[in-house]
Amino acid sequence: MYNKFPGKDITEEDIKSKIPLVANFSKEPFEIAGVVFNGKKIPVMAGPNMVESEELIIETAKSVKASGASFLRGGAFKPLSFPYRNEKYTETGLDGLKWLKSAREEAEIPVITEVMEEKHLDAVCDATDILQIGSRNMQNYPLIVESAKTGFPIMLKRHYGASLRDWLGAAEYALKEGCTKLILCERGMSIPHTHRATSRFSLDLQVVPATQEITNIPVATDPSHATFWRDWVEPMTLASIASGADSIMLEVHPDPENSAVDPLQPINFETFNSLMKKMDSVAKAVSKEVI
Amino acid sequence: MYNKFPGKDITEEDIKSKIPLVANFSKEPFEIAGVVFNGKKIPVMAGPNMVESEELIIETAKSVKASGASFLRGGAFKPLSFPYRNEKYTETGLDGLKWLKSAREEAEIPVITEVMEEKHLDAVCDATDILQIGSRNMQNYPLIVESAKTGFPIMLKRHYGASLRDWLGAAEYALKEGCTKLILCERGMSIPHTHRATSRFSLDLQVVPATQEITNIPVATDPSHATFWRDWVEPMTLASIASGADSIMLEVHPDPENSAVDPLQPINFETFNSLMKKMDSVAKAVSKEVI
Amino acid sequence: MYNKFPGKDITEEDIKSKIPLVANFSKEPFEIAGVVFNGKKIPVMAGPNMVESEELIIETAKSVKASGASFLRGGAFKPLSFPYRNEKYTETGLDGLKWLKSAREEAEIPVITEVMEEKHLDAVCDATDILQIGSRNMQNYPLIVESAKTGFPIMLKRHYGASLRDWLGAAEYALKEGCTKLILCERGMSIPHTHRATSRFSLDLQVVPATQEITNIPVATDPSHATFWRDWVEPMTLASIASGADSIMLEVHPDPENSAVDPLQPINFETFNSLMKKMDSVAKAVSKEVI
Amino acid sequence: MYNKFPGKDITEEDIKSKIPLVANFSKEPFEIAGVVFNGKKIPVMAGPNMVESEELIIETAKSVKASGASFLRGGAFKPLSFPYRNEKYTETGLDGLKWLKSAREEAEIPVITEVMEEKHLDAVCDATDILQIGSRNMQNYPLIVESAKTGFPIMLKRHYGASLRDWLGAAEYALKEGCTKLILCERGMSIPHTHRATSRFSLDLQVVPATQEITNIPVATDPSHATFWRDWVEPMTLASIASGADSIMLEVHPDPENSAVDPLQPINFETFNSLMKKMDSVAKAVSKEVI
Repeated sequence: MYNKFPGKDITEEDIKSKIPLVANFSKEPFEIAGVVFNGKKIPVMAGPNMVESEELIIETAKSVKASGASFLRGGAFKPLSFPYRNEKYTETGLDGLKWLKSAREEAEIPVITEVMEEKHLDAVCDATDILQIGSRNMQNYPLIVESAKTGFPIMLKRHYGASLRDWLGAAEYALKEGCTKLILCERGMSIPHTHRATSRFSLDLQVVPATQEITNIPVATDPSHATFWRDWVEPMTLASIASGADSIMLEVHPDPENSAVDPLQPINFETFNSLMKKMDSVAKAVSKEVI
Repeated sequence: MYNKFPGKDITEEDIKSKIPLVANFSKEPFEIAGVVFNGKKIPVMAGPNMVESEELIIETAKSVKASGASFLRGGAFKPLSFPYRNEKYTETGLDGLKWLKSAREEAEIPVITEVMEEKHLDAVCDATDILQIGSRNMQNYPLIVESAKTGFPIMLKRHYGASLRDWLGAAEYALKEGCTKLILCERGMSIPHTHRATSRFSLDLQVVPATQEITNIPVATDPSHATFWRDWVEPMTLASIASGADSIMLEVHPDPENSAVDPLQPINFETFNSLMKKMDSVAKAVSKEVI
Repeated sequence: MYNKFPGKDITEEDIKSKIPLVANFSKEPFEIAGVVFNGKKIPVMAGPNMVESEELIIETAKSVKASGASFLRGGAFKPLSFPYRNEKYTETGLDGLKWLKSAREEAEIPVITEVMEEKHLDAVCDATDILQIGSRNMQNYPLIVESAKTGFPIMLKRHYGASLRDWLGAAEYALKEGCTKLILCERGMSIPHTHRATSRFSLDLQVVPATQEITNIPVATDPSHATFWRDWVEPMTLASIASGADSIMLEVHPDPENSAVDPLQPINFETFNSLMKKMDSVAKAVSKEVI
Repeated sequence: MYNKFPGKDITEEDIKSKIPLVANFSKEPFEIAGVVFNGKKIPVMAGPNMVESEELIIETAKSVKASGASFLRGGAFKPLSFPYRNEKYTETGLDGLKWLKSAREEAEIPVITEVMEEKHLDAVCDATDILQIGSRNMQNYPLIVESAKTGFPIMLKRHYGASLRDWLGAAEYALKEGCTKLILCERGMSIPHTHRATSRFSLDLQVVPATQEITNIPVATDPSHATFWRDWVEPMTLASIASGADSIMLEVHPDPENSAVDPLQPINFETFNSLMKKMDSVAKAVSKEVI
């Protein structure tokens, strides 16, 4: 009477013919820049939305590392919904990449940053340890293919309007081109406005066990972008850990109210430090650890 | 540049003029049938979707109580999407209510069950400790008003397509009619099928902190109905606790595969017992407790 | 490779076992108060959201009839999202029903109005020719059943979050209880806020051919409630006709800016009169007529 | 009490600072390859999903031109959700472009085709009269910028999960880079699966008047991709015309059941020919024309 995947789009046939590499991803722990994924410890990626300046990114790198973060995050390139920029609200591009390199060196912490165009791949690879494909590029298959060809680890964010099936289809492109170190990241889905409880996006934690049912690719969540609201970052981060998330990405800024973009969502250093401890407590309750 | 509630429908003006009783709900703990809400301990409600028989409901009541549940749940009346019934797939109605009374007496556990029509209110009140307004009746304001007039505690489920604003508007109807013991329950929202990762509904955990920002009415979650899939009940239950949920409702059945409705979602007695322990561990990590 | 209904929830099995009466609804034209449905002429229902006063409803009845409307619409009972009322923003209840009767008599035009509670059925039936089940009550099956038992024609609005499958399931309840004159009405669905192009709801015209593929029950649309915006009522009404809609419901008010509820959506008498002529032109292009 | 754009995301401030070029787009008719947009006649673009072979595309070009189509459509590059191809289900790439050129020459009809990567721009521009940015690339701003720099006319499809605000933001990128001949195209939005009446996507006709309220950029619709179901293409095409659409894109194939992709949606030559006449009748009812 009931099929195996009621109400789900992914069939056994899909698993065989459309996402075989995703379905057979090894469950063995793997390392990126010395950090283990799929192990007992949950890696945390933290930093500002934008790499605003060299000082800011170095300061942040040192602080998040001291609190236990495994990666520094920060965008030098970023898809912005409108073409106009001003002095503050702007991408820092190649400068941003240079500052990320300084921060990586000074704070001795590996880096994850977004790549938006094939022509920037060399420059981005020079500054990062993981190539982030942003949610708006999840269906930009040529970019995924070219990124995979570099041999770099990739983190593929889910588009806010993408099904698990489409997301794993995009992941299959990366694996097929030889990517062996892949991470998936849920960053909030769009929900009907009549449901609007909460914010622009809604963190889809149900996708964590749903994904893990099909693949061993680690699943991260990004509660900052999903909630778009500082006060909800903590509960949704802890909930992510309890739901089984394999990694956490957080927006951390020395002066959140004055961050260049989305000033309502970053948390400051002190909050991050205290949240790391709470994450660790919840993680231990589910036989994992964060610090 | 940013308004206080970016992307949110609920304004300060709404809080003053449309949901003042919701916004001023006391944060003091309150009791229902000896069980404390808004306290340190998180009450768990467990039982089958349908009160299928007297034996089944008594057996379940004893088992869930032994595992630490505070309430027995079970439906005698239930909105079914199509009008046809068969021997197994049917509401047990007044018989079901009688069996719930037996179970309450024999197992000494309070009861929560759904009311669907004003004309059944007397019979339902006789068998229950909390009147459940189901998600499909969340906008049936006359039913909410009449339920509130009984003086009974009410649990108001969120419609799967309702915003927090609409949900709290429905709650205001109950409070305005004198209801003093109210619980809200998130049970999964509908999501665009292009997002379909997961299931028919998606548990909206972001609504937990969003609701708590506005009101002290306790917020429960129902991971069974939301996920519609047994394997995801555990991670989403633990995530609910970590997100700050004030109560948990779960579908528990002695023989899940053969339950009269939705056989893919209930968990059995053993799994429930083990899950209660895990819930307690996560609860302790956020300074609460379950057992 | 492709199933018959790709991406659709309604299977052949559903049609046989869950909605057989819906699927076998006769395609023969039928009459309600002398107005023919399923014929060449498309009946139009017009009037204010609320029956605000006797004068207003009589004046409107005469005007819309003169322009060619077949039914006067107007609500005496109405589900409001919050419990507070003021002098203007209030239901007129039994008074409203009395005024509708006066209007029906004076203007000699049949009436459609909403019923929200079983206990009002007698009073509503006395004042109306069609019982409207509002979108928020689409899943209030007991109300549908009791309404059907009166023998009155019913118009069943689609909930803004309901699938065609659920909508037709609700319709099956009415037919099973003996309703023979049934109309379905699409009034706008909720859409993800990230799609928000337009308004609170979005008129789902694709549901018109989708419904007609399965049943001969006439399908109306309500562009006023769907668009919530006066300027879009005309294009969406004409598009409804072109999509094959079998009836149209419109909000018409003598003084739209000052209507008691939703003042942004009604059109005035003059616009309605001119729109009727445009509707007729489009109808003739698809071998139907309006006037 | 009501703001100017209730429930809409686009504010007066947005119009001034974020999409000024979109808001000030001239309402004067403009020509692309001799075809007038924003005039009385509604240009129709027709052809297969994929340019499968030279014979097929030439045959189709001649047929749709004879029926009155203004442009031949056909994809040589196409984003496919999974990386695996077979003999039939594959992109024809540079070959496809060559065949499009042959068809353009032999049938004397201008061409519209999709570009997916900056590095293909020269080749695509050589074969097309309009660069189509597909829905999955709507947020690929670098691609939009590079496309605009070519000076070619652009048709920008709406992502199935994009708001009008985001869509117009993407359009602003094109205008800012000097594109003067721009067309927008609605091709179906994703809707919650609980609403699923109909199909994978739902044609959002309400977006037609909503867009026209803000800009004079012509708005096309693509009922084939939206409905994903042959039988609904006709009613939704006629409804598009009645809603005020400025152009129509349709999938036409000599042998629809055997088309390489999405065989459930194309119409054959005969149906297209007859539909053109019906479109013309509806167009005349709203003071426009198609043939």
